[in-house]
Amino acid sequence: MIILNLDRNSQIPLFRQVIDQLKEKIDDETIKPGEVLPPTRVFSSQLGVNRTTIYKAYQELWALGYIESRSGSYSRVRQRRDIMPAGKERESAAMNWAAVVNPSAEKVFRMFGHINYPFSEVESGFNGIDFGQLHPDMRLFPVDEFRKSFDKVIQQQGSSVLDYGDTKGLPALRQYIAGRMRSHSISASEPEILITNGAQNAIDLLMKLLARPGSRVFVESPTYGMIFPTLTYYNCEIVSIPMNNDGVDLEILERELQKGLPIFFYTMPNFHNPTGITTNQEHRERLIALFEKYNVPIIEDAFEEEMKYLGKVSLPIKSMDLHQIVIYLGSFSKILFPGIRLGWIVADKVCIDRLAALKRFDDICTSQPDQAALADFCHKGYYELHVKRIHKIYRKRMQIATQALKSYITNDNIEWKEPNGGFTIWLELKNTNLGYEEINSILLAHNVRVALGKDFFPVPNAKKYFRLAIANLNEKEIETGVRQLADAINEIYNKNN
Amino acid sequence: MIILNLDRNSQIPLFRQVIDQLKEKIDDETIKPGEVLPPTRVFSSQLGVNRTTIYKAYQELWALGYIESRSGSYSRVRQRRDIMPAGKERESAAMNWAAVVNPSAEKVFRMFGHINYPFSEVESGFNGIDFGQLHPDMRLFPVDEFRKSFDKVIQQQGSSVLDYGDTKGLPALRQYIAGRMRSHSISASEPEILITNGAQNAIDLLMKLLARPGSRVFVESPTYGMIFPTLTYYNCEIVSIPMNNDGVDLEILERELQKGLPIFFYTMPNFHNPTGITTNQEHRERLIALFEKYNVPIIEDAFEEEMKYLGKVSLPIKSMDLHQIVIYLGSFSKILFPGIRLGWIVADKVCIDRLAALKRFDDICTSQPDQAALADFCHKGYYELHVKRIHKIYRKRMQIATQALKSYITNDNIEWKEPNGGFTIWLELKNTNLGYEEINSILLAHNVRVALGKDFFPVPNAKKYFRLAIANLNEKEIETGVRQLADAINEIYNKNN
Repeated sequence: MIILNLDRNSQIPLFRQVIDQLKEKIDDETIKPGEVLPPTRVFSSQLGVNRTTIYKAYQELWALGYIESRSGSYSRVRQRRDIMPAGKERESAAMNWAAVVNPSAEKVFRMFGHINYPFSEVESGFNGIDFGQLHPDMRLFPVDEFRKSFDKVIQQQGSSVLDYGDTKGLPALRQYIAGRMRSHSISASEPEILITNGAQNAIDLLMKLLARPGSRVFVESPTYGMIFPTLTYYNCEIVSIPMNNDGVDLEILERELQKGLPIFFYTMPNFHNPTGITTNQEHRERLIALFEKYNVPIIEDAFEEEMKYLGKVSLPIKSMDLHQIVIYLGSFSKILFPGIRLGWIVADKVCIDRLAALKRFDDICTSQPDQAALADFCHKGYYELHVKRIHKIYRKRMQIATQALKSYITNDNIEWKEPNGGFTIWLELKNTNLGYEEINSILLAHNVRVALGKDFFPVPNAKKYFRLAIANLNEKEIETGVRQLADAINEIYNKNN
Repeated sequence: MIILNLDRNSQIPLFRQVIDQLKEKIDDETIKPGEVLPPTRVFSSQLGVNRTTIYKAYQELWALGYIESRSGSYSRVRQRRDIMPAGKERESAAMNWAAVVNPSAEKVFRMFGHINYPFSEVESGFNGIDFGQLHPDMRLFPVDEFRKSFDKVIQQQGSSVLDYGDTKGLPALRQYIAGRMRSHSISASEPEILITNGAQNAIDLLMKLLARPGSRVFVESPTYGMIFPTLTYYNCEIVSIPMNNDGVDLEILERELQKGLPIFFYTMPNFHNPTGITTNQEHRERLIALFEKYNVPIIEDAFEEEMKYLGKVSLPIKSMDLHQIVIYLGSFSKILFPGIRLGWIVADKVCIDRLAALKRFDDICTSQPDQAALADFCHKGYYELHVKRIHKIYRKRMQIATQALKSYITNDNIEWKEPNGGFTIWLELKNTNLGYEEINSILLAHNVRVALGKDFFPVPNAKKYFRLAIANLNEKEIETGVRQLADAINEIYNKNN
């Protein structure tokens, strides 16, 4: 007979006391594996408790693996397998996970796992002026209008806005994007638009669609650094086409096309990241004609299409895409805010249909309330209003930045070109024999941070560059930052000699 | 001299009139490519308008590619490339996109592109009782509490909640999940948890991490239908292990392990989709011991871990995972609502770190406001409250469903097993020679819809099954639906003979 010591006056419910005491007896082997526990009816009358108390206790013991209890049968103590101990660090695993993962994934982890984009700056505890992040200014986020849109769509649409939605994206949002595209001379109907989890997700989906192992991919050199891990995962051959002052070198581009066709050419015609170059209309026309000739897709990453705050710019390549070879990427991350992860692809419907199938099996659909709130926000006119507002602000910031660079940075070894919009300025540091690490520590010592040029080149480049991004700094910060930068540059060239 | 006909009384601004008329003259070649337009100063005095009017017009014409206009120089009419015509269907593309995409993506599209999950039901215009969708009841979504959490986090955290966030997931949400995992006897610290865009996204990330072309993958047969497209994309060999009444057949499983190790075994121990089977503690212990022996990962898809409304259930396999071989998938989609796309993975930290790198280059991070709102909602206790509330409701619905099945479906050819939780009941239709298409049209004619068994088998199975999901129907609908189902079944067996 099993004797328990139940306290009817305790705060602890009786069934819980039964469980705890039985567990203890099984754990210390007072009751041994194989022993049969009394039937609930018998045990409850022995203990003078309600039969459901015992029933409840047996249920939990069964769930915890202490007893076997087949319905209608007796309960027998099991040889229980241990569960993982709580609250302590795991033992080193028996499985060598690093060997279990596939070589591509492991390569991405080894080469790029240290990138904690977009957090590296925050984590380092750096406290100075940060020109390093290509990031819209949080102080300008239209938080309140967006909050109201969220509230409104959930109030008005209720449950339906929290349900699964169309993989291609919320129709109301795609409709708004189609209109916005028209304002950039791009004609796109809703079936030609796919909403993605930001532009990064668009690039991954396109690789998933187009890449084969060993595929050639053409990128501008320098280019967006976060595309390299993706190209690496898909085992592509990265072919880098140098940028000239007016955009990618079209002659080298054609020579590379003749050597072997790529699955696509990835280009940023507006306010190119990192160089800030915007190509002119003629360059764009020659570019698209070239890819039409070779019948190869162009990915036009137009992440800053809206940042034409100086007005005078060219048409998107996609607007001239009579042969449907251009895949256009748009994003809200650099205009509104990046935390909602919303971007889009405009492409031929045949291409969009296949991308949508891949996306469906990737994540079914993009967040519905995010899309609904954004659609409401946009349809109310707040998006356009916000673009106008930030145009003024960023135009002024860019003016301050370029004036400060002209005033303070007088060293002839520094070359840069005035961008006609966007967020970035690209500086070349001529005639320095210092390495990036040394340069960077001098910059940090002067309380200023930049994005180092090396991160934008697919293959190491002997020249030294850095990228200044001015979006996330106000006028005073820019002015101060450029002064500090000028001091740092002087030190760099002093050390140089 | 260029003569324009400007109307100063028109609603249309003067610069717009200038643009339109110049465009017309260039389009009809009154002004020919190569011709030089008058300087802004000259043209404005000729027309008697402000100089900025002409400047503005030239700017837009340049942007539209009508003129070349290098700064400080004259404006010359260009031979303009056409832009895509707006508002009409695209010409058939010069590029054969279906041939451009890689074979895996094309295969997924050809085999599974017709699946418009989760919308096929809605689109077909079906109006009867739908047992087909494994979908939580929208009428039970805690909409208002969630809306308030959204509002609160945006008000309190402001811009920061709309910024990029940690790829692994919002710390506050991971912290809540860690606690919730403890309540299921799983000990997991925050670095062992990765937030994903729902469980589907978790599966895709895991394939991205583990798959190599030709990798063997073990799945239960039948299993979750939406895993097949993903396995197909990654060119895996799908090895299907039959389900017995108490879970997957462990002997066949070991035989298959001996034939060749898979990259993982995908299993749903609770309320298995589609069979509804929950394995007992002993089966789970034997299962994990087997995979420890062969040192092969298990993916435990616990999408309905919380649906233990009958109480008596086993421990998660992950809770006994002393060797860190189990990858556990959780989801909010079946408990709260699916539209916010939030799920999670619990696994060895080495594994999570690599998954996080892949996720970073997939989409940087999951929606920040969605995570923040959910974390707030959960920390306030609404999640647990909601689980308790729906336990009562779904328990009742399942009782109604099983009682109705017992009462109305008296045909001996129909076999089914009472589930002990979850949302689904799996029926076998013995001795029928009708095809699924015929069966389905009889069901639809009786205004009732089910999920057809064929969609859950990796390889065609001669037996006929269907799955009833009862989550999305209230008690009355379930009762009515089962009556209609009974009539349909009678007709099926009448036709059969």
